[in-house]
Amino acid sequence: MEYFPAPGRNHLFVPGPTNIPEAVLQAMNRNNEDHRSPAFPALSKSVIEDVKQLFRTQTATSFIFPSSGTGAWESTLTNTLSPGDKIIVPCLGQFAVIWINLMKRLNFDVDVIESEWGEGVNLDILLQKLQADRSHAVKAVCVVHNETSTGVTNDLGLVRKSLDEAGHPALLLVDGVSSVGAIDFRMDEWRVDVALTGSQKALSLPTGLGIVCASPKALEACKHVKSTRGYFDWREYLECYKAGTYWPYTPSVQMLYGLRASLDLILKVEGLENIIARHLRLAEATREAVKAWGLTVSAKKPEWDSAVVTGVVVPPWLDSNDVIKIAWKKYNLSLGVGLGKVAGKLFRIGHLGYMNELQLLGALAGVELSLKDVGYPVVLGSGVAAAQGCLSKQTPLIASRL
Amino acid sequence: MEYFPAPGRNHLFVPGPTNIPEAVLQAMNRNNEDHRSPAFPALSKSVIEDVKQLFRTQTATSFIFPSSGTGAWESTLTNTLSPGDKIIVPCLGQFAVIWINLMKRLNFDVDVIESEWGEGVNLDILLQKLQADRSHAVKAVCVVHNETSTGVTNDLGLVRKSLDEAGHPALLLVDGVSSVGAIDFRMDEWRVDVALTGSQKALSLPTGLGIVCASPKALEACKHVKSTRGYFDWREYLECYKAGTYWPYTPSVQMLYGLRASLDLILKVEGLENIIARHLRLAEATREAVKAWGLTVSAKKPEWDSAVVTGVVVPPWLDSNDVIKIAWKKYNLSLGVGLGKVAGKLFRIGHLGYMNELQLLGALAGVELSLKDVGYPVVLGSGVAAAQGCLSKQTPLIASRL
Amino acid sequence: MEYFPAPGRNHLFVPGPTNIPEAVLQAMNRNNEDHRSPAFPALSKSVIEDVKQLFRTQTATSFIFPSSGTGAWESTLTNTLSPGDKIIVPCLGQFAVIWINLMKRLNFDVDVIESEWGEGVNLDILLQKLQADRSHAVKAVCVVHNETSTGVTNDLGLVRKSLDEAGHPALLLVDGVSSVGAIDFRMDEWRVDVALTGSQKALSLPTGLGIVCASPKALEACKHVKSTRGYFDWREYLECYKAGTYWPYTPSVQMLYGLRASLDLILKVEGLENIIARHLRLAEATREAVKAWGLTVSAKKPEWDSAVVTGVVVPPWLDSNDVIKIAWKKYNLSLGVGLGKVAGKLFRIGHLGYMNELQLLGALAGVELSLKDVGYPVVLGSGVAAAQGCLSKQTPLIASRL
Amino acid sequence: MEYFPAPGRNHLFVPGPTNIPEAVLQAMNRNNEDHRSPAFPALSKSVIEDVKQLFRTQTATSFIFPSSGTGAWESTLTNTLSPGDKIIVPCLGQFAVIWINLMKRLNFDVDVIESEWGEGVNLDILLQKLQADRSHAVKAVCVVHNETSTGVTNDLGLVRKSLDEAGHPALLLVDGVSSVGAIDFRMDEWRVDVALTGSQKALSLPTGLGIVCASPKALEACKHVKSTRGYFDWREYLECYKAGTYWPYTPSVQMLYGLRASLDLILKVEGLENIIARHLRLAEATREAVKAWGLTVSAKKPEWDSAVVTGVVVPPWLDSNDVIKIAWKKYNLSLGVGLGKVAGKLFRIGHLGYMNELQLLGALAGVELSLKDVGYPVVLGSGVAAAQGCLSKQTPLIASRL
Repeated sequence: MEYFPAPGRNHLFVPGPTNIPEAVLQAMNRNNEDHRSPAFPALSKSVIEDVKQLFRTQTATSFIFPSSGTGAWESTLTNTLSPGDKIIVPCLGQFAVIWINLMKRLNFDVDVIESEWGEGVNLDILLQKLQADRSHAVKAVCVVHNETSTGVTNDLGLVRKSLDEAGHPALLLVDGVSSVGAIDFRMDEWRVDVALTGSQKALSLPTGLGIVCASPKALEACKHVKSTRGYFDWREYLECYKAGTYWPYTPSVQMLYGLRASLDLILKVEGLENIIARHLRLAEATREAVKAWGLTVSAKKPEWDSAVVTGVVVPPWLDSNDVIKIAWKKYNLSLGVGLGKVAGKLFRIGHLGYMNELQLLGALAGVELSLKDVGYPVVLGSGVAAAQGCLSKQTPLIASRL
Repeated sequence: MEYFPAPGRNHLFVPGPTNIPEAVLQAMNRNNEDHRSPAFPALSKSVIEDVKQLFRTQTATSFIFPSSGTGAWESTLTNTLSPGDKIIVPCLGQFAVIWINLMKRLNFDVDVIESEWGEGVNLDILLQKLQADRSHAVKAVCVVHNETSTGVTNDLGLVRKSLDEAGHPALLLVDGVSSVGAIDFRMDEWRVDVALTGSQKALSLPTGLGIVCASPKALEACKHVKSTRGYFDWREYLECYKAGTYWPYTPSVQMLYGLRASLDLILKVEGLENIIARHLRLAEATREAVKAWGLTVSAKKPEWDSAVVTGVVVPPWLDSNDVIKIAWKKYNLSLGVGLGKVAGKLFRIGHLGYMNELQLLGALAGVELSLKDVGYPVVLGSGVAAAQGCLSKQTPLIASRL
Repeated sequence: MEYFPAPGRNHLFVPGPTNIPEAVLQAMNRNNEDHRSPAFPALSKSVIEDVKQLFRTQTATSFIFPSSGTGAWESTLTNTLSPGDKIIVPCLGQFAVIWINLMKRLNFDVDVIESEWGEGVNLDILLQKLQADRSHAVKAVCVVHNETSTGVTNDLGLVRKSLDEAGHPALLLVDGVSSVGAIDFRMDEWRVDVALTGSQKALSLPTGLGIVCASPKALEACKHVKSTRGYFDWREYLECYKAGTYWPYTPSVQMLYGLRASLDLILKVEGLENIIARHLRLAEATREAVKAWGLTVSAKKPEWDSAVVTGVVVPPWLDSNDVIKIAWKKYNLSLGVGLGKVAGKLFRIGHLGYMNELQLLGALAGVELSLKDVGYPVVLGSGVAAAQGCLSKQTPLIASRL
Repeated sequence: MEYFPAPGRNHLFVPGPTNIPEAVLQAMNRNNEDHRSPAFPALSKSVIEDVKQLFRTQTATSFIFPSSGTGAWESTLTNTLSPGDKIIVPCLGQFAVIWINLMKRLNFDVDVIESEWGEGVNLDILLQKLQADRSHAVKAVCVVHNETSTGVTNDLGLVRKSLDEAGHPALLLVDGVSSVGAIDFRMDEWRVDVALTGSQKALSLPTGLGIVCASPKALEACKHVKSTRGYFDWREYLECYKAGTYWPYTPSVQMLYGLRASLDLILKVEGLENIIARHLRLAEATREAVKAWGLTVSAKKPEWDSAVVTGVVVPPWLDSNDVIKIAWKKYNLSLGVGLGKVAGKLFRIGHLGYMNELQLLGALAGVELSLKDVGYPVVLGSGVAAAQGCLSKQTPLIASRL
């Protein structure tokens, strides 16, 4: 049953939830089963292990929570910090705003580094703050790798460098919800202490799994910190890992089989490197289109351009929600709204997950039609042509079809 | 398991099998059931009745065979004709060629009216032949409504007019495989005697149902003709209709639930009139794109333009199969090959079934990229822009989202 | 949408369509694809080859028709016989009756060997007839391997022996619709010339594939016989095999992927030998239950007992349809009706396809409840206990769970 | 892909996760969609409203968390209590043990009323404690409605009566994970302040939704209490309710469509009253079987018998895990293990969710076979017969098939 049916496929171009591959839908199309059967640990172990490859870590321990990404954040914070702990949090956009709200409700002492929306972490201020903190009162730096609301990706290597330069022992906690599995993520190389993601983004699954990787240093913190932990308590999981039962409460059988199928597609079929390259390619094509339309992307410098979502800033006389509405009402195209303080000022094109060149070009064509419908003087085909120019040079043959 | 996996959706633009709506996949995702249970006749009756609305007939009897469209043609011929019967068959393309081969194997005396491929029925010759046949030796005129191999649609009203003008009682038998449910089809108005379609076309189902509508005149013929009939024997079905069991052998439970879902989408959700208009719109946009590319459509006059498939003729120095190959190998785009004597000379863009504007525009963008890859001097974006121009004017708001 | 919904699973115990494994439903849950793509022949070839293992043949050629089993029979007859050819057909039950009707409509000269329903082929008469036919006017012997309407399985080795003993060159054509893949079938050893089955039986798929294996001798006949052939013409398939396109008309993508999954379950996961043993075990348990109820099975001698369906004869004062009705109306249990001349006299318990011990025991418990409801003096639990006694001794550990 | 494949259906008789109806699998078989689209609130609102009917409340506010039932418990406690608050918790079995562990980690002052496992709440002690608490230091009484580990159901009306008798204002917080939707639950009548359930139990969905209903009194408490709340904060939901966006973070599209389908089956198709009666019927039949086997159920008095799960105590010389292992390894039957201190001493038969008589009888037959396999002197068929005797009298005709 659909509430607002429309002919043909929905064109889903929000930066999550993303399009689900048929192989994943097939794997999830199954009855429940007993999660205490001898069969279940085999599946559980395989996904708990393999998911770490997305984070490029060999040293971390992974936890898969039946929750959204927000739950994974709560788990990250409460298992590594005590109430009242000081944490530095760059605020780059709406998701940082949401996290800061969460952090305050969880009783942490949040030191916010404000950036203009569209900019990345202000590394100068970060370094200053870390250097100034001689007593190491700051317990963690909490960074959003890819700020989905503004289409900004931070260079985590530079964040790590700031910590090193300051010789600061604070934990590095990273929201990789919209990056891990799509944007190059090097947990071990960057010595990230905790990184997290959600199933409905690069993994192209339904919402419902919050995935966390914790470094040995984070696990050590977990033993000592004083935050209240119930549902999201790593210690309960670790006991189950030891016992070989894996889950302190009932997991979703379907989501775990879906995760297995998704990991197979990523790690065995397409390959993580190829996936990262595909996201870069689609993102560049999208930005070329935006330029051709005479509009600007919301990331204020190329170094911050996101490979998974592009914010498109509309002229002041235009309400970006009108573009989004007509796209949905006329072309069955779902674009991302401007969130928080950029509501009405930008719309977002998600190019995240299991998606290819022609899907994107169809959506860009739809954006053009929508822009025209709301009165923006776009040249139909201009953005598509620009994106095609970019893709024509970069798109490789499909590996299985050489 | 996929044999040649590729990221993202396959862009399926052959003129059948067509894209299946989620609602149909859902309806078909079920265990087998006993087709002799009291439940099954209710479903059977509902689809046998409602399918007639696609043909716009209130007088015909419908038969749903577990077969492809070819089986439906055999059923049409053997239930209305006797071996040796003379039939007039305009040959417009590959599907007519296939039918003529079939008709000969079934021992009919086939009088072929050749047309150049890309042209419709030669109505002058048809009229001449009918008028010349004073003894009414000709028992049927067999016409393909929409010749899928060349993208040519015939005006069946004019074919009927020829029969009337000649005062000829021959049966009018129509292959509506790629037209019924997508192109306006008026069985009662045009006094078509038998019309047939297949499930994998406008109905957007898997292959597997051959659907036939027979007029009272055709049913009368069925009683007397001498063709050998086994599997496709209408008389066996008619007995089962009388008995309320509906099926002389086991039908596919899944396909019938799928057909029910498809009919609901067509008749209740989108509406047949709106679907016909959508196909006209997408077809016109496609032709505008072809023109912008500097290529020609295979239908030689606008009156024959098909609303469901557009043949695109490539220059002599180009092999159309190369376009199709690169589209599949690089862009996961499935285009229709040139069949029979136009192999290598044209490729086909199917715009049939459950499809919308942005799907088409994505595919047109993919055709452009493919043309460029094979060395055709296409201006990227040119066809998309032309199609957008057309669609921008004609696309209505989605009814459920007004 | 269900027409007569009921809580819990439907208990499907008709001898086809049978219960579909989840792995098959998953494999079929997919969009259409272009059957002319380079991907499709790989799938096609694999199933066309592997399906022969079910028939235990290395010499035959297989054909997979988009049709029910009836179509496979028509294909068998028309590709190996000419109109007017004399054929010997033992009539053992309703399916033989249906085939004889079909054979007559296809203009063969049918010499019926009547058996009482519940008996197998009368081998004495068969031998007499063959020996008497010195001129070899008889072109084929057409046998139902397992007569689904009476639960009778014939020993095809003995049929072959009769032909050999008479030194008769007639073709041996076998309906293996309800046997192949569940009952031991030795095409090459028994020198069967054509054998056929349907997808909705041992293969546990939806209805929709008629599968035929033809010996070299049958293929040779195909070249010379004079029967009219259209849709079911082997020669069209053989040409496509040569061309590597495999299909003379559009096949069902979903059914072929489903067939691939089913063959994997049969050949790779459970193993054909184990499947045959499982069917024997479930059948014996069922017969033990029938005995415990004080009823008789419809097969008149143990040598004819079927491994896939058991006919249960009710006392004359009882209408078997009442048992079936109450089973469906109260227990969501689907039993097979008595067909043709045994309507009302017996009901059938199908134990065919993807089914295990506890499914059967649940159904037997349901039969007992239904028998009680219609007034038959059954001791509740008696049949279940008898069946359990049998299964307790024979059921092996599940191979993957040792 | 299965890890330990076996022929036929898995017989899932754990008390959750339960068997999923086809209609629910169908509804969940869909791509992701934008949860910020105008379509999504319509779905969200409908399930948030209708789920309250399962709790029989017209005054409560419901919250649906992407979590398991454990998360729903955490949400219940932290939104109604402050750290250090005294709560009375009867401990009846393993789930109470788990909750008490959770409550302690959440810093509540837990006053446990121990019962022997197999007994219900000790109402005398409860009353004493409440009466003794003149200062109303006790802020809540936390009761498991149905203790899944021992098959014990408490009479919540009597618990309410104790509170009333003592004139105590403590909140009444109820774990209805395995009861709501299957056992009569009267939130408004019993003045339950918070009740919770999970999707994988009576709702017959995958795991992944924790569902909470909060009374106005509980909502009032939520404003004032001091517990730390992040992911499970009702206040965040309430703000989204006001805004009409419904979700503070991304919900699972598939689970919500599944919930819609499940609610339709429960409320519109079968009817909650009928479902409750079905569970009572299946439970009684199960207990009759246990008696016939010469074993005892774990609930120590009939007044505590659970309608959704039956604990079966094995003799001391037998390890209940051996029964469970052989059931899984040989009969593809999944039984519930004995948890915590009854591990090895009992096994559990879940008869919860979308299940019917014959499914249960098949499972009971399987228990008998397994008991025999492990050396327990069971009379095969004895339990099935006893259960049949009970079901034969009570099973109604299926409403849609009258």
